[in-house]
Amino acid sequence: MPTLQFAEIRSAALAALKQVDVPEAFAIEQVDLLLEAELRGVPSHGLLRLERIVRRIRNGVANPNTEGKHTWRQQSFLEVDGERGLGPVVANHALNALMERASASGIALAAIKNSNHIGMLGWYVERCAAVGFSTIALSTSEALVHPWGARQAMIGTNPIAIGVPTGGKPFMMDTATSVVSMGEIHDHALRNVPIPDHWALDENGSPTTDAHAAKKGAIAPFGQAKGYALGLAFELIVASLSGTAIGRDVRGTLDEDQVCNKGDIFIVIKGPHRDLQGYLDAIRSTAPAEGFGAVLIPGERGRACREQRLTDGIPIADEVWRKLQDLASAAA
Amino acid sequence: MPTLQFAEIRSAALAALKQVDVPEAFAIEQVDLLLEAELRGVPSHGLLRLERIVRRIRNGVANPNTEGKHTWRQQSFLEVDGERGLGPVVANHALNALMERASASGIALAAIKNSNHIGMLGWYVERCAAVGFSTIALSTSEALVHPWGARQAMIGTNPIAIGVPTGGKPFMMDTATSVVSMGEIHDHALRNVPIPDHWALDENGSPTTDAHAAKKGAIAPFGQAKGYALGLAFELIVASLSGTAIGRDVRGTLDEDQVCNKGDIFIVIKGPHRDLQGYLDAIRSTAPAEGFGAVLIPGERGRACREQRLTDGIPIADEVWRKLQDLASAAA
Repeated sequence: MPTLQFAEIRSAALAALKQVDVPEAFAIEQVDLLLEAELRGVPSHGLLRLERIVRRIRNGVANPNTEGKHTWRQQSFLEVDGERGLGPVVANHALNALMERASASGIALAAIKNSNHIGMLGWYVERCAAVGFSTIALSTSEALVHPWGARQAMIGTNPIAIGVPTGGKPFMMDTATSVVSMGEIHDHALRNVPIPDHWALDENGSPTTDAHAAKKGAIAPFGQAKGYALGLAFELIVASLSGTAIGRDVRGTLDEDQVCNKGDIFIVIKGPHRDLQGYLDAIRSTAPAEGFGAVLIPGERGRACREQRLTDGIPIADEVWRKLQDLASAAA
Repeated sequence: MPTLQFAEIRSAALAALKQVDVPEAFAIEQVDLLLEAELRGVPSHGLLRLERIVRRIRNGVANPNTEGKHTWRQQSFLEVDGERGLGPVVANHALNALMERASASGIALAAIKNSNHIGMLGWYVERCAAVGFSTIALSTSEALVHPWGARQAMIGTNPIAIGVPTGGKPFMMDTATSVVSMGEIHDHALRNVPIPDHWALDENGSPTTDAHAAKKGAIAPFGQAKGYALGLAFELIVASLSGTAIGRDVRGTLDEDQVCNKGDIFIVIKGPHRDLQGYLDAIRSTAPAEGFGAVLIPGERGRACREQRLTDGIPIADEVWRKLQDLASAAA
């Protein structure tokens, strides 16, 4: 696996998007989102996704030339028709409008439909928290998760991210409501190693440790009934507010030719924020339990990884780097 | 355990609050909140709490005569000083203001400090969803939960509730971010039965199956690192927006003489809501997994229990009913 410098990868990724006529400013937003995932050690949301984005543009289900149509439905409720735009381009435009509005009104919400995959939610909420806004982000996805006690996938992996200003570096957490990502299961299948028995069901709805069988089945919600309740609540509130597809009707974040009909919600809050560093320091300095080296704050391992990789380079899977170079030279 | 009619219990509970000069309208809000928990089979948030409320009023840390001071900090951000008022009285007043404001602006938030325990969060979000508002409720509590990988309680049980209009009965979920409530651990201790080994640590931070040891220790977050990240995010965002105490400084929901310094956040959204019944029906009718009799929608078991208990009566623990009668006759 080659280790490459940030600037070199970024140039190649920008070149790849230039080949399909993405305006430079929009290409930068898309590439920086993917690279941020690579920097933080989340390759499932990184450059792996670039080929699909390129193909979706070629297939007409992603439109590289729009930020979407943003309409204030009410004073603090922004209705966004993404017009099939690139996920981060549409989302960033919405967030900029939300931060301006929340500065005046205290809180503002965007409900986004008809936009492509927005990637790692943590990127957005951290950006807002860094300039003084608490932010909650919710998103839906294809149905990959089974209701607790059911046999079949009916719910998206529906992630939540929360960012909070702290007086120092912002707090940021970002997690799917599935016990594990489908990417992780694919990775186990690729390596032919078994998965833990509580991760997934096979296509008949029976628990399985076979990653290949799990790929055709359903992933468990995290935390059993509680994570199911949360994932379902996110499915309902996102679909309801954004007017997007629900459950098994969701398409377009895992394929190359379907219009993306999932939804995204951002809630941005301008509050009387305060210094939370003392409390976070107290958690960091508490004694770790047996088997743990340290007590971690969510998001901070990724941030440390980011610092290190900006200096030392980013390890990229051979196949991903080769494909990226092909895309950059239009050979793909 | 006697089974008593709703009306009889309600009269006794109202009489108990009359003994400490709670105005009737406020007493009804407080009692209906507690009774709603009894109806739905959540006695830990029910009448068990009434004696503590009475004592807190007697001790001057709960003020039965105020709805709190509600100030619009910005257009859609309601700052609430509960003035030591009863939790549901202060919260209901805030919610009424939020629903009115959100109808105009799309979304509104209340940040509540200096208010007493607000009980079962689901009660509030269901009420809002029933009249067309999606609602997110967050609350903090005394530090009872350990960070994932730590030995010591540093975080509240920090519940979340989400309500969504569905076109039929509202969707409502309500869960703590701890794997189990401290009430459940106390119940095991009382019955001298062991707890599962992943529920709690003892006071030295070692896993324990001894409920008595767990009472002095820390409860695990639900869903391991993911539930920890959520619980911590709620601790931070609630404390930050409401200006309330954080971590091990929180007091006043489990004692009789400390000013209650936890915080509550409500976010109320007036969106383009739609019919979600078809999707919920599809989940209800999907085949249950082995060991499950049916696939449940969160909140619906409680609602069925409520219907049944309104007709057949509510089983109340002997001790709780005896105490309630004492409080009603001022013998306590």
